[in-house]
Amino acid sequence: MKNSQNFYLALIHHPITNKRGEKVTTSVTNLDIHDIARSCETFGIRTYFIVTPLKAQHELVGKILGHWDSDSGNLYNPDRSEALRQVELKNSLSDVVEKVSSIEGKVPLLAMTGANFQTYDGNCKDLIKISEDKSSAVLLCFGTGWGLHCDALEKADFKLNPIISEKTLYNHLSVRSAVAIYLDRLFGKQ
Amino acid sequence: MKNSQNFYLALIHHPITNKRGEKVTTSVTNLDIHDIARSCETFGIRTYFIVTPLKAQHELVGKILGHWDSDSGNLYNPDRSEALRQVELKNSLSDVVEKVSSIEGKVPLLAMTGANFQTYDGNCKDLIKISEDKSSAVLLCFGTGWGLHCDALEKADFKLNPIISEKTLYNHLSVRSAVAIYLDRLFGKQ
Repeated sequence: MKNSQNFYLALIHHPITNKRGEKVTTSVTNLDIHDIARSCETFGIRTYFIVTPLKAQHELVGKILGHWDSDSGNLYNPDRSEALRQVELKNSLSDVVEKVSSIEGKVPLLAMTGANFQTYDGNCKDLIKISEDKSSAVLLCFGTGWGLHCDALEKADFKLNPIISEKTLYNHLSVRSAVAIYLDRLFGKQ
Repeated sequence: MKNSQNFYLALIHHPITNKRGEKVTTSVTNLDIHDIARSCETFGIRTYFIVTPLKAQHELVGKILGHWDSDSGNLYNPDRSEALRQVELKNSLSDVVEKVSSIEGKVPLLAMTGANFQTYDGNCKDLIKISEDKSSAVLLCFGTGWGLHCDALEKADFKLNPIISEKTLYNHLSVRSAVAIYLDRLFGKQ
């Protein structure tokens, strides 16, 4: 039985690589909050962590989440409010790992995603099997910008195979689309 | 052999249902253009049609596409320019059907998607099989707002099963996420 309730997701805004390969902090975007929260809610992800060290971004995201948790937001679109209640803000990937470890009683497997890794460890079925074999929770990590910086990547326990099609060599999906596809591959019912 | 090159996609902004069940025209959003173009490019969709009868929206989308087709847009992010070259603006679903028919020499199958249809016809494999059996191109139609209005739905040849998971009853994905998942189910290589 696939159990998505010990799967967590982190959208990482630092440390990120920019177009020139430099380490940067990207901005949180409104649509990343909404789209990914709705995908997480659909596929039963336990918590969706938004990771940024920037205090101003915490305030901004806090305001957005507060709006949808208010009576007016909830009245206008209760489904949206429901999805956004699983969102949690964190300063760093380490803080997310600490939080998940405290819930689960052990450190989660860090599964990282990206289009241009040197090596990959397997597909979604492989990841579920390892999680079951080790009785470990999984933290799925997604980068923004031009992808996760090597400072984050070096912590990976498992690098998920990239999303490619049978028809093209193009691999520049948005992070919102990539999240949707991976969660469907993990927990979708066809 | 799955051939995505006779699959087309239409994102429909009219006729759409709003929250109160009324027939409306929704606005084109920038991220719908980009995210869906990138998904279409990844999975080899032949043309991504954006459908709206509003002249002002045609001008707006034309400007966005023009920017990315310009030297500066192409220099900054050639992958983005590449994806957006498959985008085509149309006034109505009928205009899209006419265009695809002229390319393919016969009317395409209209496959429609939505979370709350009364009945469904099958999954992505079923759709590919029907397309092969009939030697027909397929036009995948996605609604915006609260979904495709019945004036569009009544033209459907095939209603694709909704995207659900094994773990929740929540079915409120963004259209960007839904497109990504359906295209992966049709043409993704796991």
